[in-house]
Amino acid sequence: MLMNDQAGLPLPLSGRTRVFAIVGDPITQAGSPRLFNSAFRARSAEAVLIPLEVKDVDLPAIIDAFRRTRNFDGLVITVPHKLAAFSLVDNFSDMASRIGAVNVIRKHGGQIFGDNFDGLGFIAGLSQKGHDLAGKRILIVGAGGAGRAVAHAILDRQPAAIRLFDIDQVRMNDVVVELRDYSDQVVIETGVPDPTGFDMVVNCTSIGMRPEQNYPILIENLDSSTLVADIIVEPDITPLLAAAQSRGCVTHSGIHMLSGQVSAICEFFGI
Amino acid sequence: MLMNDQAGLPLPLSGRTRVFAIVGDPITQAGSPRLFNSAFRARSAEAVLIPLEVKDVDLPAIIDAFRRTRNFDGLVITVPHKLAAFSLVDNFSDMASRIGAVNVIRKHGGQIFGDNFDGLGFIAGLSQKGHDLAGKRILIVGAGGAGRAVAHAILDRQPAAIRLFDIDQVRMNDVVVELRDYSDQVVIETGVPDPTGFDMVVNCTSIGMRPEQNYPILIENLDSSTLVADIIVEPDITPLLAAAQSRGCVTHSGIHMLSGQVSAICEFFGI
Repeated sequence: MLMNDQAGLPLPLSGRTRVFAIVGDPITQAGSPRLFNSAFRARSAEAVLIPLEVKDVDLPAIIDAFRRTRNFDGLVITVPHKLAAFSLVDNFSDMASRIGAVNVIRKHGGQIFGDNFDGLGFIAGLSQKGHDLAGKRILIVGAGGAGRAVAHAILDRQPAAIRLFDIDQVRMNDVVVELRDYSDQVVIETGVPDPTGFDMVVNCTSIGMRPEQNYPILIENLDSSTLVADIIVEPDITPLLAAAQSRGCVTHSGIHMLSGQVSAICEFFGI
Repeated sequence: MLMNDQAGLPLPLSGRTRVFAIVGDPITQAGSPRLFNSAFRARSAEAVLIPLEVKDVDLPAIIDAFRRTRNFDGLVITVPHKLAAFSLVDNFSDMASRIGAVNVIRKHGGQIFGDNFDGLGFIAGLSQKGHDLAGKRILIVGAGGAGRAVAHAILDRQPAAIRLFDIDQVRMNDVVVELRDYSDQVVIETGVPDPTGFDMVVNCTSIGMRPEQNYPILIENLDSSTLVADIIVEPDITPLLAAAQSRGCVTHSGIHMLSGQVSAICEFFGI
């Protein structure tokens, strides 16, 4: 990850520049424009990734415009559009199908194709920091598009147990049923967002993205031995991570999930 | 106009970057991404202008997406969309109304507003090169969006006479009638694209943009005393300009019309 003044700089633009976008709401906090434009430049690709802030009701119109524009070659999809985007693509990967959410879309043979690299990115980011999940007990809060991707990716790393919580109980229960289809070795349960006894907690909700001070877990029960991860990119240190650090926990910021998938997405985009 | 490796380079992109686009078909030859991104950077604006290649049937869908995206703040419209875009905006300037074509669109109070700086840019580009049009006889070939803009702007500079030619005779005659509404001093006529006796010839067609070798005027009648201007940006020297130079004519490239309006469009975009 580049942290200097050049981070986010593409090659000079011309009429031949290939266009990519990240679509979300809000978008001002998105790390993708910085990361992908740096990556495009590093690969000497005449390409640019722009931020587009689009309300959920307008997502179909933006994807329609994407289809109709010749040099508009790919989309990164972020909160809150990952589930809706799944229903708007023509085809999708096995992983996207398993999660029911896409975070990237490209064109392929006159159709648009969705895939999902969030889980891959999350695991790659943890591995780069030396965190292994095998045999661990994991609490995941949030069962939206990102939460599902993270839960499926964690499941594949052979933890001892996964607890999932979401304020939407129907969604929470649906995801647990889906997860159980992919493993009979791992204990998979729903339950309150109480970190007691868990080796790792992952926040996959948007709590902490906006200025309000709020926690996605019962923070008073957080022990210093628990690794606390967030998938929110901005702020880098969410209120959850700040509270965890003040309790002596090791923390893991959201940027790592994003940076962990940039290379894979560049390849997906043909860059 | 920057001609070095940095031309076309915006500031680094982030989630806060304002997005602008040039919309045309084809778009690979467009000079606007190079010129505007350099201008945005020079003004320290967190903004980027991307090329979008869109067929005429798809223009309404792209303008719809523009309306629906919060940080998508402005469009530059180029060939062949300038006339169609006029019918798709909610409001327009007096100049756009006079020409019946827009080459820029911005948002204003929940609506989209079109203006046209092509004529201003063409005259500014000529002036920078020391060419004055007062009292001159001018042949304009092409009565599309750009041709109309150029014709109206030339008319306002008090030439002696304007001849307009377009292969679409209905369009040609309509534009001549419109021009006559704005001056009873200037001789305004239709006629063949024969440069004999004209002080300046302006190509406002797309002939010369694509590889085929073709001329918009009766090239064999071109005299060395005639100033020959083109509005095509790429190639910089069109077959017309090359033929004119070989006959000893002074020529004027299309990039000057574009560079002559960059500052005015930046101001229009609020940059």
